[in-house]
Amino acid sequence: MNKRILGIDPGSQITGIGIVDVNDNDNDNIKFVHSEIIDCRKITDLGSKLKKIFDCAAGIVEEYQPQVAILEKIFFAVNAKTALLLGHARGAVMASIQTKEIQIFEYSPKEIKLALIGEGGAHKFQINMMVKLLLNIKDKEISFDESDALAAAICHINHHSWLSKLSR
Amino acid sequence: MNKRILGIDPGSQITGIGIVDVNDNDNDNIKFVHSEIIDCRKITDLGSKLKKIFDCAAGIVEEYQPQVAILEKIFFAVNAKTALLLGHARGAVMASIQTKEIQIFEYSPKEIKLALIGEGGAHKFQINMMVKLLLNIKDKEISFDESDALAAAICHINHHSWLSKLSR
Repeated sequence: MNKRILGIDPGSQITGIGIVDVNDNDNDNIKFVHSEIIDCRKITDLGSKLKKIFDCAAGIVEEYQPQVAILEKIFFAVNAKTALLLGHARGAVMASIQTKEIQIFEYSPKEIKLALIGEGGAHKFQINMMVKLLLNIKDKEISFDESDALAAAICHINHHSWLSKLSR
Repeated sequence: MNKRILGIDPGSQITGIGIVDVNDNDNDNIKFVHSEIIDCRKITDLGSKLKKIFDCAAGIVEEYQPQVAILEKIFFAVNAKTALLLGHARGAVMASIQTKEIQIFEYSPKEIKLALIGEGGAHKFQINMMVKLLLNIKDKEISFDESDALAAAICHINHHSWLSKLSR
């Protein structure tokens, strides 16, 4: 059976969205389904930003019906102001997804980079290249926000694949 | 005409809620309508916490039909971890309220304390006492989270009253 996984990279300016399918019996066969960004750069009012993020996330869940959602855990070495803004965006996204009763998993940036590149300090453009390679994306431009979201989804698959191999 | 004002004091553990009515022609006549807390202390999962905050805020707006919502602006001198947690709660609350198309106003803790006590450094118990006195609350226990929410609502009324006096 196919499992549909929604990866999200929330941000107060741009939220990256990436969706992949994977077959339960063949975790190496990951199919790209969709990616997009929720662009809030032109919205100055915080409430309106959060409403857009909430509504868009709800719409994406409604349209693509993923079984699980994956977010990057927050990297704490940011200042309080950045953390607060990012927290607002994450709060709106997570409330939106949880309202649809979709289970949320979180992985640290290091876990995601390790899963994709095998190296915790990889750059965004390396993630971007590897995501496009793994998902065989040739005819679509994928922004860093989208590839970060897709990378989170792929990390979840690798993590589960590894766990299931351990329990065999 | 009466205006109904929802004050909110968001928190990752407890969110305070306070609702007051005020007559447009007599800003000194503020009536207490309701107060409660959204208690998330027993919920460990962040997604479930945010869903509860979102759903409860939506339910309160549905039941009491306020015209505006007032939040305390964040005090930035907290660390990044606290700011992030608080940001999540604020994000869920603001997305919930904005979804109902209610206008949100924010005031700094200092503005709220000044409006109530006339002194920016007032303690929570002073706010609590003054809120109960102003709203003539005698037969109900009001927690600090509730009085902070009610204080935000009262601050908005004072602020508007002052502005309308200036423009006369």
